[in-house]
Amino acid sequence: LPAVAEEPYRTVTLTSDFGVQDPYVGVMKGVMLKINPRLHLVDLTHAIAPQDIRAAAFLLSHSFGFFPRNSLHVVVVDPGVGTARRAILVASENHFFLAPDNGVLGLIEKVEEVRAVYEITASHYYLPEQSSTFHGRDVFAPIAAWFTRGVGPELLGERIESVQRLELPAPVAHGTVLAGQVVHVDRFGNLISNLDKDGLRGVLSSTGAKRMSVEIGGRDLGALRRTYAEGPDGTPFPLIGSYGTVEVAIKGGNAAASLGLSSGAEIRAVFYSA
Amino acid sequence: LPAVAEEPYRTVTLTSDFGVQDPYVGVMKGVMLKINPRLHLVDLTHAIAPQDIRAAAFLLSHSFGFFPRNSLHVVVVDPGVGTARRAILVASENHFFLAPDNGVLGLIEKVEEVRAVYEITASHYYLPEQSSTFHGRDVFAPIAAWFTRGVGPELLGERIESVQRLELPAPVAHGTVLAGQVVHVDRFGNLISNLDKDGLRGVLSSTGAKRMSVEIGGRDLGALRRTYAEGPDGTPFPLIGSYGTVEVAIKGGNAAASLGLSSGAEIRAVFYSA
Amino acid sequence: LPAVAEEPYRTVTLTSDFGVQDPYVGVMKGVMLKINPRLHLVDLTHAIAPQDIRAAAFLLSHSFGFFPRNSLHVVVVDPGVGTARRAILVASENHFFLAPDNGVLGLIEKVEEVRAVYEITASHYYLPEQSSTFHGRDVFAPIAAWFTRGVGPELLGERIESVQRLELPAPVAHGTVLAGQVVHVDRFGNLISNLDKDGLRGVLSSTGAKRMSVEIGGRDLGALRRTYAEGPDGTPFPLIGSYGTVEVAIKGGNAAASLGLSSGAEIRAVFYSA
Repeated sequence: LPAVAEEPYRTVTLTSDFGVQDPYVGVMKGVMLKINPRLHLVDLTHAIAPQDIRAAAFLLSHSFGFFPRNSLHVVVVDPGVGTARRAILVASENHFFLAPDNGVLGLIEKVEEVRAVYEITASHYYLPEQSSTFHGRDVFAPIAAWFTRGVGPELLGERIESVQRLELPAPVAHGTVLAGQVVHVDRFGNLISNLDKDGLRGVLSSTGAKRMSVEIGGRDLGALRRTYAEGPDGTPFPLIGSYGTVEVAIKGGNAAASLGLSSGAEIRAVFYSA
Repeated sequence: LPAVAEEPYRTVTLTSDFGVQDPYVGVMKGVMLKINPRLHLVDLTHAIAPQDIRAAAFLLSHSFGFFPRNSLHVVVVDPGVGTARRAILVASENHFFLAPDNGVLGLIEKVEEVRAVYEITASHYYLPEQSSTFHGRDVFAPIAAWFTRGVGPELLGERIESVQRLELPAPVAHGTVLAGQVVHVDRFGNLISNLDKDGLRGVLSSTGAKRMSVEIGGRDLGALRRTYAEGPDGTPFPLIGSYGTVEVAIKGGNAAASLGLSSGAEIRAVFYSA
Repeated sequence: LPAVAEEPYRTVTLTSDFGVQDPYVGVMKGVMLKINPRLHLVDLTHAIAPQDIRAAAFLLSHSFGFFPRNSLHVVVVDPGVGTARRAILVASENHFFLAPDNGVLGLIEKVEEVRAVYEITASHYYLPEQSSTFHGRDVFAPIAAWFTRGVGPELLGERIESVQRLELPAPVAHGTVLAGQVVHVDRFGNLISNLDKDGLRGVLSSTGAKRMSVEIGGRDLGALRRTYAEGPDGTPFPLIGSYGTVEVAIKGGNAAASLGLSSGAEIRAVFYSA
């Protein structure tokens, strides 16, 4: 396992569907700073669509590796709050994660080996009075803060076998077509898909294709461009975005609005021999 | 009074109606960090509806207790900025507050005893040039930062008797009905009311009722559920939310949009003897 | 040049058009904290309209002076990301700036003398793998963090002559009229113009005028008021706002929505001899 609390400025990231118009996130930070005033708290995003476990899992898995070693990543997207769903702490090769066990941590293992999983049971570390509706404040925040104070996982719960899997549609290859989905629309209206570079390279080498075209919403958008600036004016085009996957953008415009597409839309990479 | 500046990492929370699309909040933080670079600045919310003193007072009063002892809570919802309205510093049992004296601190005393109130008059601690429109930057930020550096309340102003009261409608009991209002709609569309657990228990015990039903917008939503997950599918239902008051939610949906209701809507708890 | 890294708690401000619904900003912070865990990271704003270089330049120039001396201001509004546009580090009298060289730093010199400009070329300080689409994460964040660790500008790039100018329309005086533009609409719907106090005073003294009236959208709004509270009820009025320029507001309302105006709208100060 990675070492716990080895440095005085421990980074804790927060991901939720709480938004920032309510004090929910601020109150979680208050609870944590009351226990450990030396935390570095970083908001990853609080704009996950309400209860969208898949989006949270996707965004977390593409983000956590950029944070310092031994960061603790707290994810509160929790439609089952107050029910028997477990709260878990996960140790991967270089990071820690705290979340409800509902699949939101299901994509970590695609990035780093998962070393250990614990079910959180040490309720004496929770806030004294627990609501049935806001475990982010009453359970996750205090557990996170005590963990960063050096209370190790074995004091916080019981070791268990694995985390809940996430049923996420994966790209499917049929001959010269690799079909995937839009998994996120960002602020710029870019349609971000799950077609990643490795998947594209795999089909390219197995088919011996010479060129590739991206199709979405019944339109052929042509070959990948390298940058946003190199895209055509006013027309959607594909490129490999900062998640390392195919995304569809419009230079200076909003591809999602222009194409009338959103998360879940099918996207296809079609390979040609000439 | 609580001790001033007893620890090196003083937490200052910020609540305003400034939003986060403009640099107003960032600039306030700059002013504070210039005076005291060791602050822990936490955004409670900046999405208070413009000049909605009641909403700010409600959210602050339900949030501040979760922060570390001796935190300073700065609230800038200030329709009277530049006029003769006072700026005040309030010391409660465990916390400090800095705000315009317009009622926004009027609900603190429901949570903690108010120990002392000071009118801020020490203009030599303000920014050298003061606008008539942005005292958050020119007055509240520097006063907050100097306070956390150890400049005590008696050096910042004159002791006064009390803070401006907040005229907030309180729940009213008529026989077997307790009538209140929606006081906040959160990101999930949950309608959060001012019907709190103590009020419900009071009517329950005085009437000897056996069960309770919640009515809103002309609809009877039945008894309280314990968690969001236990609510019916697609139908609004009531529960005690994380503010400790009755709220109305729809599982996986938006109750405010679905019912066409918002802040100010009447909500009733109706008690039955069988 | 100002001293580099002279204090342990270096403030870094972040300004971008990334919004906060995606993890882009959080990931930039992760990259920085991995290199320098002692940073004070402050969001100035991430709600710049996508690729609106002028708005970013305006807001930055009116904000940076409120931050601690030797702060580093990172601005990522970067329509040319991945192309040959330069990344630059600018040292002014009291502050540092890091941004693409596209005009976004073009208004700094109106506030403070620019002492030196460097083109960033030290790619060994970038993230090992660089995307063509997110230099905020791959280039600007690591360069910012190494700079705050004491890696001076001469180690990060080559000294160059100047930054790209910003073509921003400036107010124009014609006899007794000073004509300018709305350059920003804030959260309250206030229309913020580029007519500043010095410009108004100049025309006032050169014309010997006795009074001034502000016109916008074909309406004469009368003389400047001093505070929001002193404005008329329900009618737009002008005042000098917190940017030190003329802005148009409606007390308790939204002037931009009410007048149907936005950034770019013409605004005129008309001077009268009686």
